[in-house]
Order: sequence, then structure tokens, then C-alpha cells
Amino acid sequence: MFFASDNGLGASDKVMQAIAAANGGARLGYGNDDATKAVVQKLCDLFERDVGVYMVATGTAANGLALSTLTPPWGIVLCHEESHVIEDECCGPEFFTGGAKLVGIPGRGAKITAQALEAAIAGLGRRVPHNAPIHALSITQSTELGQVYSVAEVTALSSIAKSHGLGVHMDGARFANAVAALGCSPAEITWKAGVDVLSFGTTKGGGLACEALIYFDPAKSAEMVRRRMRAGHLLSKHRFLAAQMEAFLDGGHWLDLARDANRAAARLADGLAAIPGIRLPLKPEANGLFPIFRQEIVDALKAEGAAFYPWPDKGLPEAERARPGEVMMRLVTSFATRDEDIDRFLAVAARAAAPLAAE
Amino acid sequence: MFFASDNGLGASDKVMQAIAAANGGARLGYGNDDATKAVVQKLCDLFERDVGVYMVATGTAANGLALSTLTPPWGIVLCHEESHVIEDECCGPEFFTGGAKLVGIPGRGAKITAQALEAAIAGLGRRVPHNAPIHALSITQSTELGQVYSVAEVTALSSIAKSHGLGVHMDGARFANAVAALGCSPAEITWKAGVDVLSFGTTKGGGLACEALIYFDPAKSAEMVRRRMRAGHLLSKHRFLAAQMEAFLDGGHWLDLARDANRAAARLADGLAAIPGIRLPLKPEANGLFPIFRQEIVDALKAEGAAFYPWPDKGLPEAERARPGEVMMRLVTSFATRDEDIDRFLAVAARAAAPLAAE
Amino acid sequence: MFFASDNGLGASDKVMQAIAAANGGARLGYGNDDATKAVVQKLCDLFERDVGVYMVATGTAANGLALSTLTPPWGIVLCHEESHVIEDECCGPEFFTGGAKLVGIPGRGAKITAQALEAAIAGLGRRVPHNAPIHALSITQSTELGQVYSVAEVTALSSIAKSHGLGVHMDGARFANAVAALGCSPAEITWKAGVDVLSFGTTKGGGLACEALIYFDPAKSAEMVRRRMRAGHLLSKHRFLAAQMEAFLDGGHWLDLARDANRAAARLADGLAAIPGIRLPLKPEANGLFPIFRQEIVDALKAEGAAFYPWPDKGLPEAERARPGEVMMRLVTSFATRDEDIDRFLAVAARAAAPLAAE
Amino acid sequence: MFFASDNGLGASDKVMQAIAAANGGARLGYGNDDATKAVVQKLCDLFERDVGVYMVATGTAANGLALSTLTPPWGIVLCHEESHVIEDECCGPEFFTGGAKLVGIPGRGAKITAQALEAAIAGLGRRVPHNAPIHALSITQSTELGQVYSVAEVTALSSIAKSHGLGVHMDGARFANAVAALGCSPAEITWKAGVDVLSFGTTKGGGLACEALIYFDPAKSAEMVRRRMRAGHLLSKHRFLAAQMEAFLDGGHWLDLARDANRAAARLADGLAAIPGIRLPLKPEANGLFPIFRQEIVDALKAEGAAFYPWPDKGLPEAERARPGEVMMRLVTSFATRDEDIDRFLAVAARAAAPLAAE
Repeated sequence: MFFASDNGLGASDKVMQAIAAANGGARLGYGNDDATKAVVQKLCDLFERDVGVYMVATGTAANGLALSTLTPPWGIVLCHEESHVIEDECCGPEFFTGGAKLVGIPGRGAKITAQALEAAIAGLGRRVPHNAPIHALSITQSTELGQVYSVAEVTALSSIAKSHGLGVHMDGARFANAVAALGCSPAEITWKAGVDVLSFGTTKGGGLACEALIYFDPAKSAEMVRRRMRAGHLLSKHRFLAAQMEAFLDGGHWLDLARDANRAAARLADGLAAIPGIRLPLKPEANGLFPIFRQEIVDALKAEGAAFYPWPDKGLPEAERARPGEVMMRLVTSFATRDEDIDRFLAVAARAAAPLAAE
Repeated sequence: MFFASDNGLGASDKVMQAIAAANGGARLGYGNDDATKAVVQKLCDLFERDVGVYMVATGTAANGLALSTLTPPWGIVLCHEESHVIEDECCGPEFFTGGAKLVGIPGRGAKITAQALEAAIAGLGRRVPHNAPIHALSITQSTELGQVYSVAEVTALSSIAKSHGLGVHMDGARFANAVAALGCSPAEITWKAGVDVLSFGTTKGGGLACEALIYFDPAKSAEMVRRRMRAGHLLSKHRFLAAQMEAFLDGGHWLDLARDANRAAARLADGLAAIPGIRLPLKPEANGLFPIFRQEIVDALKAEGAAFYPWPDKGLPEAERARPGEVMMRLVTSFATRDEDIDRFLAVAARAAAPLAAE
Repeated sequence: MFFASDNGLGASDKVMQAIAAANGGARLGYGNDDATKAVVQKLCDLFERDVGVYMVATGTAANGLALSTLTPPWGIVLCHEESHVIEDECCGPEFFTGGAKLVGIPGRGAKITAQALEAAIAGLGRRVPHNAPIHALSITQSTELGQVYSVAEVTALSSIAKSHGLGVHMDGARFANAVAALGCSPAEITWKAGVDVLSFGTTKGGGLACEALIYFDPAKSAEMVRRRMRAGHLLSKHRFLAAQMEAFLDGGHWLDLARDANRAAARLADGLAAIPGIRLPLKPEANGLFPIFRQEIVDALKAEGAAFYPWPDKGLPEAERARPGEVMMRLVTSFATRDEDIDRFLAVAARAAAPLAAE
Repeated sequence: MFFASDNGLGASDKVMQAIAAANGGARLGYGNDDATKAVVQKLCDLFERDVGVYMVATGTAANGLALSTLTPPWGIVLCHEESHVIEDECCGPEFFTGGAKLVGIPGRGAKITAQALEAAIAGLGRRVPHNAPIHALSITQSTELGQVYSVAEVTALSSIAKSHGLGVHMDGARFANAVAALGCSPAEITWKAGVDVLSFGTTKGGGLACEALIYFDPAKSAEMVRRRMRAGHLLSKHRFLAAQMEAFLDGGHWLDLARDANRAAARLADGLAAIPGIRLPLKPEANGLFPIFRQEIVDALKAEGAAFYPWPDKGLPEAERARPGEVMMRLVTSFATRDEDIDRFLAVAARAAAPLAAE
């Protein structure tokens, strides 16, 4: 019953086989191999335009490198106040950008609304040179709280951003889950909706350790080869990044994996909704669930070996937050989540909840 | 005939199998898994003391993170003027340290002598606060030009460094080749010889992408977990780094691989020495060779598909450098270099050299 | 009628005479002169203990250098969300600290309450190594909105900070105004109340360009001479910084100047309070006033040449903010503000307000 | 007998009077005052073109800010190996540029020759992305060893730099002394000779604390107002920088002061040349002398209260360096150096040398 994170279940078999198959034989290092070139082409095809592609091993690297090209060291990057870039990267964006400032915007489910974005922009000072200028917007798709931006929502945010001259970054560590949920094309939810740079994740979705920075205007990524090198993020045996990405994309494997993860989340959500003592203020739209449990239920699940973590509910309106005796938890499903684990989790929860229902 | 680099031939079969075997099943991410803990213990055993271990995917990351704990942003790191940290990391150490200064020391074969180190230290100013203070020494073992420091040499350098209060870093991207060549224990050539931090490489030696920062005084690595995180170098599916390292160390596999690479270099060197129009100013001591060829021989080898690169000979005394019509080349062997490739390379070279001998 | 800023009226005569008197004759540069040594002693006397003193020419430099010793590049500095360090220094603290994160805390009048500080600390995540750790608290005395922390308030904040291991910085660009208002000793409102480092300003208070970093534990300022040097903030003709500070402190000149500025603010506030169409949600406690004016009054004042700026009222409860037709303005008095300018300002305002009263 | 530095003798009377005269009355801060605008115009006139002007209080700030616009954080700045930027700013350029690398070029008298520049450029690797790319050349005029580049020499260096796409910075802390020595126009030795950015010093030449960054293509200084702000180098009472610069330029005051300093150096050099036991390997061309003394003479001078410092002679050919019993010293004259001090210095030296002559 592992719901601690979608990075806890290894790589998909297909990805792992591709890595093994890429071994043997001489290849030039540092991305000068044919497999890398083929993957770049594949990503151009997927996104229906020429894109600049830079693969690295972690999402924090992809995000930091992306932001470093969207803001000078004295600029402001707007993001959600519960986003990974501002909360979970231990000042990584500040490191990569050379000291830029991340300013968090509130919003339900870790989503930024158009209204909130406009308010944030309006609320920041414009005195030159005292106030730092805003240079970029970073949004996460799907969000850190399991929500998904629609094409219309991304378009609205990008269009506000553009009207203020901001670059737009999308943290797509769980991009696949969002695309699977939306049923749109990758192009529609990115550059056609105004996104300039995408951190396209495979790791959480079934890769081993591979994230691609995708620049929809390759010219804007000039010098990225040097930025990546000096940050120690250019892998010498680059063929193994290419192999992961190739397998991930091949035949829509990435979307199949994401659909499995999303389906597991829906199954779990449906089951939880029927159990007293558990409520789901945020309807899960991708592969993350954030139910509020009675503490007794969590205790029972932990006792049975379920792996999942408490999560802050500060982003919810006060009336919906955990009350005394309750706790908000994060459950993340992945391509490898098994139905039997879900069902067992639900059974344990239901059993623990039974006495509560009678209260 | 691939001699372009030791990162061109994939991972060893054993390492690759270990990666595949580590797949499947739930594990906590970010190094909180049992395999990581086991590998740390294994490294403590190997180095005969408690060590602090931090695994990352590239050597540039390992070096930069190591140096960032040895110098403040306004300090000086002494290194060889042909070292990887100063020449090949696109200002990576400057990035990781927040702006420290690398000062290069000359020396044959990319080795720093005790005398040269003392001269460099004496030559740097001491006016406070104008002159930047020296904080660290970084040496590469084996060196970028295929040479190996003896235990006595490392001890001499470290002892000079310590007498000036400097920390000592060893860039061990090819540490295995050095230990194989020396026949000493890993402890003898590191902390017993005065080294504080080692970048212990597996990638060039048979890993896929795994380098370990080894702190011989774990207390000195405090905050490294945060440094690594903010630089985007903490892999979430950390089990796969652990799997590589475990297989690399298991049963002395790392030394077997290094011995194979060193043996291939010796075979190549022996063959080249017998061919007119080729000279070897630097006797190869590990797995890198830097012969000076008559250009015609290089042309013939390239025509036959040999992969190898020209290399600057500026570190040699002027009398030994390439003369007009000659060029210094770098040849690197690896665990996967095949004897038949060596022999074919030698045959092509000998054939091309024959007319020259008659000159 | 200049109320645009307290940096608009030059230096006090006494300070300027001291600068002129310091000219002529040979002195060692970079702070190695006797005048600098004497000033350090004077500051030790003033603060009733040994202090580490580092003079620079700007407040942004003092703040940035101070914070750089209180947090590593991956740490969090808590401050008020309307504070100078987070709003007005164009990412200066991020630059000096190498990428630390400033997190703003709300609060009326740019003051942080103990409750708000505790809430902010509680609200930040503790997951290692993802969440950046909190390292420091920075408070401004007197605040950017003209309020003054009492000794009890500073003590309460510091004690919360210390209980979480945070260092405490006080931005004292207008420290003199606060001490003059409180009538306490400089020691009582700083180190005795738990402050570790003070940016002690003279510039706004009557200096030409001189701010002193004061470390109450000199040991914690180790390496500050190098930090200051590399940031270009060590003045070679350091005698002129010493001269300013000496004159500023001499015979309580600094407090006399501050009392004059505070008195001018009070006179202005009293007059404004009696005028219809003007309200003062924040009672001025030092030398800054933030009245909300009917726009017509502002227009009339501008037409008569009054210099003052609009200021965001976002820190006020919504009910107290400027309504349509109103605007919050900032008025700053200084040691050189003349009563006749105040009275003329009040007269113009009253005249413009007369028709409004009749409404 | 103060020859320790040209920052040891205060400001010129004219500059000091201008500072005092600028006091009183209200002015907008941060450079928005009329005096600042007038000075910018004056500098446009002086340099015979539109220039971008940014005043700061120190030379290290001017140099660091200048270089930060000429190189990305991963670039190389070429400079003389004895230059101020690489030796005397405690990693200031690395701080301001965000981690760029300074590479020193050898050369007599701290001058870079065209040949040495070409050799340095040729000697640096070009492998992308491993080798850091060269972005700028920084030269010092007059040099740290009292030498002056001719117009032809600067032109030759700039033209090599341009042919490699490098920006050219001139550290002109002692620019006035060079122009006075050359008798050329400021335009001829800067932009007409290919210089892009000049750190134009007044401090060493008679100012109190004022250096101007001069961009000959103002478009290239975009964002400098923000760079200067975040580094804490924007003075609020900016009128006092303007006052210094205005007085410095007025009526050729700056050149008068420089001529006085140069004349003093020549008088000192002439005198020293006639004394046995003293030799001058470097003929002084501006206001710095670097004689090699017999130690006995130095001892006698120190005993009489002369202030001057030993200086490294490593830049000289070995045959010309100090021999046992000798020491190279630095003597710097300024606008305020008095003939009687020079003559007394010479007399003491001659007396101490007399017994040596008899040897």
C-alpha cells in the first residue's frame, strides 16, 4: 500500500528494457549520439514544431535551468505559493538564477487563477530601481495538489503574463497526467496556450531519472548547453537519457502510464468518498489525492503498513481545513499502483471508520 | 577503434544488471531506501572508517559540491592548470562555490609537484582584505594526462596544504585506475595521505551515471544534503544510484574493470612505442595515453574510423611538444576496450608509419 | 515643502564640517586610520559592550552584508512583507547571501507581531532537504511605515527567533528616530532585547553616506572584512566615513537630529488630523506619516510644489484603506524640515479641504 | 614622506568645497537631481559622444559592475596577472558576474602586449560546452605598475579582442594620470581605441569617493540601474557624487591634479636614479614608482618615517628582480605630494646609500 510518492515504484519495464538495450557499443558522449538526435526529433513531432531539447536527471534541475533563462538575477518569478519551485527545492531556483525572487500567489488546489495573477502583478511595486521587476510566471501542470489547468485556463494566464512581458514556464513533472486527464494534444496545452518553456518529466511517470527542458522557441535557449554544463547537469553517457525518453514516448507509452496512474487515483477517490470520517475537499484530477481523514483512520492504515504522508491544508479555505482530530494526507498513485493495494487500503480505512460512523 | 573517451562504452554488464534488478517494488525516494544505506556501509568498509557519502550523477556536480564546502565564495582553490575543474567544467566550481577563484599550477602530466605547490602558495599575496585567501587544494587522481600520484606524492602535497590550513580535494573520476595502478588500499591514497574529500567516480570506470562524494570527516559535510538538493543533484529514485555503486564495489568489480582499462592502455602504449613517427613523452600510468603522432598517421587512422581527439601539449617542456607536422592526441581506454581494436589501431598506424621510417 | 524622503536634505552642518575637517594630511586607507579606530571605540561605549563595526556607504549594502552572515545561501530570512529588504533593494539580499529566500510576514504598520511571527514559522515546512530552513529574522526599527517597536516587542520577537535558532537583524536606517521616540538606551533596544546585528544608519538621519554594521558579538562578523571588500563596499578614504560617524555621535547629535525630525512629524500629524478629508489610520511614531488624503487635497498640494509620494495601503485592514477618490501618501520629515514648510503645507491642505467639509 | 598610496591624502580643496557647497536645500535622491544630470552632460562633452554614466563610491564596485555586463557567469575575462581585478578585489569580479573566471596574462609592468593577448586566446580551449568561452578583456590604464598604454597599444589590444568578439573594459582608477602622461584626448584613448566601458576614477586622483562607469554605447548598460541598486551601490544622496565629479572635471582640474602627481613621480624618479643602491627596472610613466632598493636604504627611510610598501617583483624578468639584500618597493605620488617630502626622502636615501657606494 505505497502511496507516498510517484517516485517510489521504479521505472516502467519498457523504459528499463530500453536502458539495458542502449548499453554496449561505442557512442560519443554528452548528447552527441544518434539516439539523442532521434529523441529530439521525436519531441519536435510530438509538439508539432521545432523545439530546443535539453535533458537532465532531475526536475529541480530542469526547473532551475528553465527559470534562469526567463529572469535576470534581480527579477521576480511569480508562482503558486504551494508550488514545488518555491517550497520544495531548497532555494534551487534562487541558485540557478543567481538570486531572483520567487513570489507566491495563493489559490485553491495549488492553482493560480487569472484574477489572482492580476492581483499579484498589480500588488507589486514599479519604482525603478528599487522594486525588483517581474520577469516570469511559473505554473505546475498537473499541480502539486493534483489539480489540472484547462487549456482555457493556461491560455488566460499566459495572456496576462504576455501582456506584462513575462515569460511562461510550465513545471511538468506530472505533465503526462495532465495531458491524459485533459485529452488534449501536448501542443495545445503548452505553446499554443502561451507556454515558453516546459519541464517535461518522465521520472514520476515511469522513467528512471530523466526530465527534458523543452523550449518552444529554440532561440531562447541559447547558452543552455553551457548553463547545463556548469551546473553539472550534462550527463556524459547521455545515451541513457535518450533511451529513457525514447521508450517513454514510443507508441504513446507515456500517456498509457499516466492513464493508469490517473485511473488508480480515481478508483481510490471513489472508494474514499464512500467512507465516513474521510472527506475530499479537492476533487482529484490527475494522480494525487489530498483527503482529510479522521486521525483514527490514518493510524489504522499506518498500522497495516500503508505509506502516505500528512500534507499542509493551508491552501484551503478555513472552513474546509482539517478540524481537531483530523489530518490532511497526500496519496499519490503511479503507473505501478496495483488495484489490490487500493482495495486493501479502502478496506482497512472502512473498517477503521465503522465505529466513527456510529458516533 | 573507439579511444575518444572512457565514457563512450556504456556500463559494465554487472552494473547494468544491478540497475535492472533494482527495479520493481516500492522504495522511499531521495536516498531513504535500504540499498543506499547498505552502500554507505560498504564505502565505510572500503575506506576503513566512517565516511559521509553523497551520490550524484556527474563528476562536475561532485567536484563543485565538494569544493563548495572547502572554500567560502571569496577563497582560492589551487589546482593544476590542466585540471578538469579549471578547464572542463565551464565555470562549474565558480557556480557551486558562489564565486571562488581557481588558480592553476603548472606541472608535467597534469601533476602538481610539492615544489610547484609551495611556489604557488608563496606567490599569492597576503594583504587583507585585498588578496583572496587560499582555502583548498584540488588534485586529480589519476590525472587528466594519464599520470598517477604515488602515496608519497599525495602525502607531500597534503602536508604542505595542511600547513597552510587548506582543505584537500581529490577528483577521482578515474580513482579506480589509480588505485589499480598503485596497488595500494583506497584508504592509503586518500585520508591516510591527507585527503579530506574525494569525488569517487564510477561513470568512467563502468557505471552508468554515478559519482560519490566521500567525506573522510563526515562532520565536514554538514548541510551537503541541502547543497545537493538546491543544485538539483538529489535523484528521487535514488535506489538506482545505490544499485550502480553496489555492483561497482561488489567483489572488487571496480578494480577488475580498472585493471582491464589500464592493461589495454599498456598494450596500446607498448605497440605505439615500436612505431616510427610516434613518440610518447608521457609514459601512461593509468588508462589515458597522449602520444605525439606524425599527422599522416593520424589521417590514416581517422580514415579507418578510429575515434580519438587532438589534445593540447602546452603542459610539456617546449622541446618535447609537437613539432610542425606532428600533433598530440588523446587516447583513452576503458574496461570495454577490445584487444582486437588495439591491434587493428596499431596495424593501421604501423602501415601509415612505414614510409616515414624510410625518410 | 519637501516631504519626499529623509534623504533629500543633505547632511547636517556638523557632519559636513567634520568631513571637511578630516581632509588634509596623510592617513592610511581602508579603515587603518586613527579616526576609524576612535569611532569604533565610541560605538562600543554607546552600546555598552564590545561591538564589531563595519562602515559602508549605503543601507542596502549594510543590510545585505548583515544578512549574508546570518543565513547560508539556501536559508530563509523572515521579514515584514512591506520591509525595505524584501521590497526596495532589487534583490540585494538575495545577491549578498548568494540566493537565500526572503519570506514576508503581514502586519499593520510594517510591524511584525509575535503572533504573526509564530504563525509564519509554523507555516513553513520542515521536510529535509526539500524545504529551505529558516535562519534569520529581520525587523526594521523604526518601520517603513513610521511605527516603532517597543523594547518589549523586540524582546518578544527575538525570543521567539532564538527559540528556533534564528539570528536577528535590525534594519536601523531610522534607528535614531526610534531611539529618540522610545527614550531608551541603544543597548536596551538592540542586544539587550536580543538583536544580533544592527544596520545603524546615519544617512537618513543627517549623515552624507554612512551606515555602520554593528555586530554585538564581534566573533560572528569574522570574514566581514572580506565580504565587504569583494562587494566593493570598503571605501579607500575611510577617514571620511569615520568623520561622519564621529560627528553624528558626538554629544548626542544623532538624537538631537532625530528628535527634530520626529517633532516635525508630530507637528505635521497634529495639523493634518484637524483637516477634513484627511485621515491617519497609522499614528506616526517616528518621522514618517502615511495619511489618506482626498485626491483634491493632494492635487492642490502638488500644485503648490509639495513633494511627496503615493504609497501602497495594502498593509491596512480593508476597511481602513483608501476609498475611491482617496489616496494614501507618504510624508517623511527630517532634521532639516522647517516649521514654515509644515505650516504652509497644512494651510494649503486646509484650504483645499474646506469645500469638502461642506459636502 | 607619505608614498603608501594615492588614496592617503584626502580630496582636493576644490572637490571638498564642492561637496560642502552641494549641501543644503532639497534634492531628489538616487541620481534624479539636476547636478547629476549636469555631470552626465559634462562627461558626454568630455568624451565627445553620448555616454551612459553610473556613479558609485569605489573602484571595485565600478570594475565589478562593468565586467558583469561584459560576460555571462560562465565566461572568461582576460586581464593582466598583476591587475587589480584579479589580485586586489578579493573575488569581487567573480561576485558581481555571478561566477565568471578571470584568466591572468603575464607581461612587464602589468601591461598586456598584443602578442601575449593573442597567445592567451590561442591557449584557451574551445570545446563546447566544456571550456568556458572568453567574453571580455580588461586592461588597466595607467597600470598597477605605473606604466601607460599608448593609443596604438590600446587600439591593437582592442582590435584583437573585437576580432574574437570580446568586450573591452578599461580600469581607469588612474585614468587621469594616463591621459596627463599621454597628452591625448579622453576619447582617443578610450572608445576611439576600441574601449567599451571605462571605470573612470576620481578617488585616487583627488575625489573623496567617486568613480564613474562610462559606457560608450549607452545601450549596452541597460539594467545597470538595477545591477547597481541590488549591489547596494546607488547612493541616496547622490548629489554628493555629482558634486565631486563636477568639481573634478571643471576647468580641467582632474588633469591639473594628475599632472602634479606625475610630476612628483618624475622628480622622485630622477632623484632615485642618481643614488647608488637603488635601481628602477621600470621607468615610471604616471604616478607610481617601483624601485629596487638595498634593504639598508629602506630601513633608513622607514626609520625616518617614510610610508611605502614592498611590492612583488614577480612580473619582472628574473635577471632584473631583487637580489638578496634588495627589495622592490612601491612609491605612489599624488596631487598633494609635496616637493619637500620628495627631497627629504631623497636626502635620507642618499645618506643611507653613501656607505654602499664605497663597497
